[in-house]
Amino acid sequence: MGVVVKEIARADAAVIDALGQAGVATVHEAQGRRGCLRAHLRPVWRGARIAGSAVTVSAPPGDNWMLHVAIEQLRAGDVLVLAPTSPCDDGYFGDLLATSAMARGCRGLVIDAGVRDVAALEAMGFAVWAKAISVQGTVKETLGSVNVPVVCAGQMVHPGDVICADDDGVVVVRREEAAGVLEQAQARLAGEEEKRRLLAAGKLGLDLYDMRGRLKDRGLKYM
Amino acid sequence: MGVVVKEIARADAAVIDALGQAGVATVHEAQGRRGCLRAHLRPVWRGARIAGSAVTVSAPPGDNWMLHVAIEQLRAGDVLVLAPTSPCDDGYFGDLLATSAMARGCRGLVIDAGVRDVAALEAMGFAVWAKAISVQGTVKETLGSVNVPVVCAGQMVHPGDVICADDDGVVVVRREEAAGVLEQAQARLAGEEEKRRLLAAGKLGLDLYDMRGRLKDRGLKYM
Amino acid sequence: MGVVVKEIARADAAVIDALGQAGVATVHEAQGRRGCLRAHLRPVWRGARIAGSAVTVSAPPGDNWMLHVAIEQLRAGDVLVLAPTSPCDDGYFGDLLATSAMARGCRGLVIDAGVRDVAALEAMGFAVWAKAISVQGTVKETLGSVNVPVVCAGQMVHPGDVICADDDGVVVVRREEAAGVLEQAQARLAGEEEKRRLLAAGKLGLDLYDMRGRLKDRGLKYM
Amino acid sequence: MGVVVKEIARADAAVIDALGQAGVATVHEAQGRRGCLRAHLRPVWRGARIAGSAVTVSAPPGDNWMLHVAIEQLRAGDVLVLAPTSPCDDGYFGDLLATSAMARGCRGLVIDAGVRDVAALEAMGFAVWAKAISVQGTVKETLGSVNVPVVCAGQMVHPGDVICADDDGVVVVRREEAAGVLEQAQARLAGEEEKRRLLAAGKLGLDLYDMRGRLKDRGLKYM
Amino acid sequence: MGVVVKEIARADAAVIDALGQAGVATVHEAQGRRGCLRAHLRPVWRGARIAGSAVTVSAPPGDNWMLHVAIEQLRAGDVLVLAPTSPCDDGYFGDLLATSAMARGCRGLVIDAGVRDVAALEAMGFAVWAKAISVQGTVKETLGSVNVPVVCAGQMVHPGDVICADDDGVVVVRREEAAGVLEQAQARLAGEEEKRRLLAAGKLGLDLYDMRGRLKDRGLKYM
Amino acid sequence: MGVVVKEIARADAAVIDALGQAGVATVHEAQGRRGCLRAHLRPVWRGARIAGSAVTVSAPPGDNWMLHVAIEQLRAGDVLVLAPTSPCDDGYFGDLLATSAMARGCRGLVIDAGVRDVAALEAMGFAVWAKAISVQGTVKETLGSVNVPVVCAGQMVHPGDVICADDDGVVVVRREEAAGVLEQAQARLAGEEEKRRLLAAGKLGLDLYDMRGRLKDRGLKYM
Repeated sequence: MGVVVKEIARADAAVIDALGQAGVATVHEAQGRRGCLRAHLRPVWRGARIAGSAVTVSAPPGDNWMLHVAIEQLRAGDVLVLAPTSPCDDGYFGDLLATSAMARGCRGLVIDAGVRDVAALEAMGFAVWAKAISVQGTVKETLGSVNVPVVCAGQMVHPGDVICADDDGVVVVRREEAAGVLEQAQARLAGEEEKRRLLAAGKLGLDLYDMRGRLKDRGLKYM
Repeated sequence: MGVVVKEIARADAAVIDALGQAGVATVHEAQGRRGCLRAHLRPVWRGARIAGSAVTVSAPPGDNWMLHVAIEQLRAGDVLVLAPTSPCDDGYFGDLLATSAMARGCRGLVIDAGVRDVAALEAMGFAVWAKAISVQGTVKETLGSVNVPVVCAGQMVHPGDVICADDDGVVVVRREEAAGVLEQAQARLAGEEEKRRLLAAGKLGLDLYDMRGRLKDRGLKYM
Repeated sequence: MGVVVKEIARADAAVIDALGQAGVATVHEAQGRRGCLRAHLRPVWRGARIAGSAVTVSAPPGDNWMLHVAIEQLRAGDVLVLAPTSPCDDGYFGDLLATSAMARGCRGLVIDAGVRDVAALEAMGFAVWAKAISVQGTVKETLGSVNVPVVCAGQMVHPGDVICADDDGVVVVRREEAAGVLEQAQARLAGEEEKRRLLAAGKLGLDLYDMRGRLKDRGLKYM
Repeated sequence: MGVVVKEIARADAAVIDALGQAGVATVHEAQGRRGCLRAHLRPVWRGARIAGSAVTVSAPPGDNWMLHVAIEQLRAGDVLVLAPTSPCDDGYFGDLLATSAMARGCRGLVIDAGVRDVAALEAMGFAVWAKAISVQGTVKETLGSVNVPVVCAGQMVHPGDVICADDDGVVVVRREEAAGVLEQAQARLAGEEEKRRLLAAGKLGLDLYDMRGRLKDRGLKYM
Repeated sequence: MGVVVKEIARADAAVIDALGQAGVATVHEAQGRRGCLRAHLRPVWRGARIAGSAVTVSAPPGDNWMLHVAIEQLRAGDVLVLAPTSPCDDGYFGDLLATSAMARGCRGLVIDAGVRDVAALEAMGFAVWAKAISVQGTVKETLGSVNVPVVCAGQMVHPGDVICADDDGVVVVRREEAAGVLEQAQARLAGEEEKRRLLAAGKLGLDLYDMRGRLKDRGLKYM
Repeated sequence: MGVVVKEIARADAAVIDALGQAGVATVHEAQGRRGCLRAHLRPVWRGARIAGSAVTVSAPPGDNWMLHVAIEQLRAGDVLVLAPTSPCDDGYFGDLLATSAMARGCRGLVIDAGVRDVAALEAMGFAVWAKAISVQGTVKETLGSVNVPVVCAGQMVHPGDVICADDDGVVVVRREEAAGVLEQAQARLAGEEEKRRLLAAGKLGLDLYDMRGRLKDRGLKYM
């Protein structure tokens, strides 16, 4: 506790942006169904789709002091990721912190705790995925750390990992795997278009994916 | 496990449509306050109101194979109802499965588990009531069953039962009771219009429903 | 149980309205981070912002009889606050009760239980903060009380206390403290405008709030 | 609602007793991993292992009137199964009801709600599986039903079904399948003894169940 | 926040002890089914039954500083009652604090948060009812208050109120009502003995409480 | 997925054993209040206190195949740590697997999912910390991995890390920090004995830890 790492490696900006466009579900599949943060994290407003480099925050329950420290470490294209050291729903973040983070080019916040001023956050277009919406205030008394590995909503996040988030939730991609995952994601998207067309035309998944034989082998009975 | 029932009885199409128009709250009251699925099932987008015949799916946790099997059994006007065999929030269903289901005339999905691609689902107008929104991927390894009775979100659902769903949640009506419940629902709606007019004009429920005497008998004291 | 208090004191109407304009997060901070109801209470539709005098209801689980009794006690500008005597998600309140409450000038409902007819409530513009959306019907068999102190979502609420609610949640202000809290809230709002301008211009909270020295004293290390 | 079925079919007493001896985990496997009630049902004291015929109770939230009605329907060897019509943790059952149920030969209670007097229940040796321990009192105002099918903790239970319960939880066996399930359970128990001996001697499950080939086929890599 | 009230009124010691002997379920019924704390509070070890005067603590999440302050205010026969200002499961209390509290005659702790050292607490015979068992450590940075009214597990507790706790949970009795509630509790206990004898002898509750007529009036049907 | 790492580093056996004797609460404090697994992990029976080297298992929801693979990798003194890839309460582990694990010298299981046969586990003395007790059976269809880093109940666990567990819960110590943490833990235990003696003699924590000045500085008021 009480450590701030100032220099972190980030993935290539073009890779990050392309992962953001691919969307969370595709990226999650593309990396072998790994990296999905728990479903209790929800967007506080619908319609955002972002990707960015994680600037991580480990914070005590009910204490948002480290967010101020973290904001100084933000570069354009980053995403704040806050994990409390024990479960907490308090409102760590609101419109003033969002104003400050946006001024530094921050693309959004992923927080396994609460936020407030959600109407203002939506009006500002600052994207947030949170566990709770709560005005419960926090203090500034105890140190945490910035840019150390954290476990957020059940997933390990290292500083500089790529965070993708949209209405489906949040997925983390290891920085060093980002380019490879993007390749898989794009291959997947290319294939999906044709599948979507065939399914819309009435072809069954049973046939498209050639499942009938394997279902029969496993013993499926039609009555 | 491992059974697909191909022929199921369905209620009369006109009755189903009329139940859909009546709305979930009215239908629930009309059948004596029975059949309400647990409140953790929520619409993944707001504004849909549907009714349809249940095509049921019993699926293992984290395995969506049976959805492909179930889609072949869908007829126009049906609603998919999926119950996992143990609690699970994984994302069983997304836009490709929705495309396939819509191509067969399916009106929506009720699932006591998770779904993904919710932005696409809303754009397509495919209605879903789910326990969670999650991209967590599923496998296709273990058989389940289609069109067997299932317990979904605390209610028994038989294949062919009528599912009504709107922003208030989901209610199930036994197929063989559907016409009778509709009659009750329509009587109820007819009476509500007049009540709404009187209440809007300032008449109190205490007087409209003649409650004062019974409250006094039970011992209510005004101070 | 079984008591209705007819005369309750209310705060000054202008103070109440001004607290409503200040918003929940500001009011909560202005009174020393007290009075925040649990975050499981959520608006059933987004965009409302209200304040009003609490007319309280203590109701048995699954029994909404007392709401009819409470509506008679409402005056223009009041907010209904319902706490069940044991945890319950049933749908105590819907569009007919909302019609009746609106006819008496009621500004909204805060309920640590469920409501229904949420599409209609939004269409009517009747604001509700609830624990659940559920059509599960209730009975009218057992007495509760109206205008007695209740614990609602973790906070004591006395009849006549000021309830503020918006997309961030719900906060209660003691009636006798309302004017003082408003003063604090307005001072706070005045100060925030300048802070927002400076933060938007790129000034860091670390400097604006002069935190660097205290962080260093506590032992924060930059690496 | 408001129905009491007096005559119900029960399984053979010797079959029921033998299922009780087999234990919940074995019976659950023996019937194809079906029938397991949700894990939130826990024994209020440890060490009981019972089986009996279900006498079912559908009760309103916070209202235990129907338990008195149900007790009259009990025969020696029965188990009470209570499902509330909406979720509720109140204390429906305590030592007086247990005294009355024991006097009629009842073997225990399975309740998807709360109970109280747990120290006394343990002293009396009356076995209870419950969702909660709570003294929150209930009323006697609203009818429910006795010996109708209920969904209890996620499983359909018909009157006369066999309920097995021990420290692992609760499983329901359809009355008409009880003899067949017992046969499977006993075959399973016979096989387990030898397996247990081999495993204790150090033989690996990988070899005992001949899993290595299939793991390799699926692609397992040792590093 | 930051207030310690040194002088509080307490109920009569003999009344408190007698309420403890009556037990939680009886006391709860005796005061009209009021005052029951939420069922998520559980004894960390089974078998204790206590009553005492509440010394209340309002503490920030994850900060147990105020417990040290509160211990100085304890007198023989008191019970500590801690409510965090926002939900928290951290381990606020362990064997050293228990040693200190016992040295001052404290009878136990009721805490809507976590505790640790539970094996030691049981060995010492120090009774605790808690929401969680957790070693998660707390800090000593932020003030709270001692002997102010708190909402603990859904119930208002005033300093000096009587806390009764046993294996069934926790109930609070207003200090000024304690003698009256005891009278009701003792009357109730006296009546129960005879009822228990009759029920054990096979008399039905339906007859003992004369319920058959009222059930019939409400429409109960036997089939 | 589908990887088994056969060679992992382990901490010194004497250090591990000494950490086990120190207990979870002390070890957690000794390493700076880090490493505590979420409080929903509870011992399935009370009274065990263990430490051992983690052999980790990443398993699909409802699929316990990898446990058989993991058991082959166990050495005397190891502890199995299973994390499902999405939340699951199914019963992955019972008495046969415990028999096999014990035959290899395994000291216990930490599992963020369910187990069964708990009466047998207690009789055998096999220690288990689990999220749930459930007989819900699992399948053997999908690969996971053994001895890869996992996030279990909110904490990262690497293969070979030291797991300490007792009635208070579970804490993980990095393998490479184990000796240093032990040193801190022993220093802490040495100091606690004297503190316990003084507190038992009536000395207040306020004085023992010299808190009065700092409390006054922060503004604590006695009334």
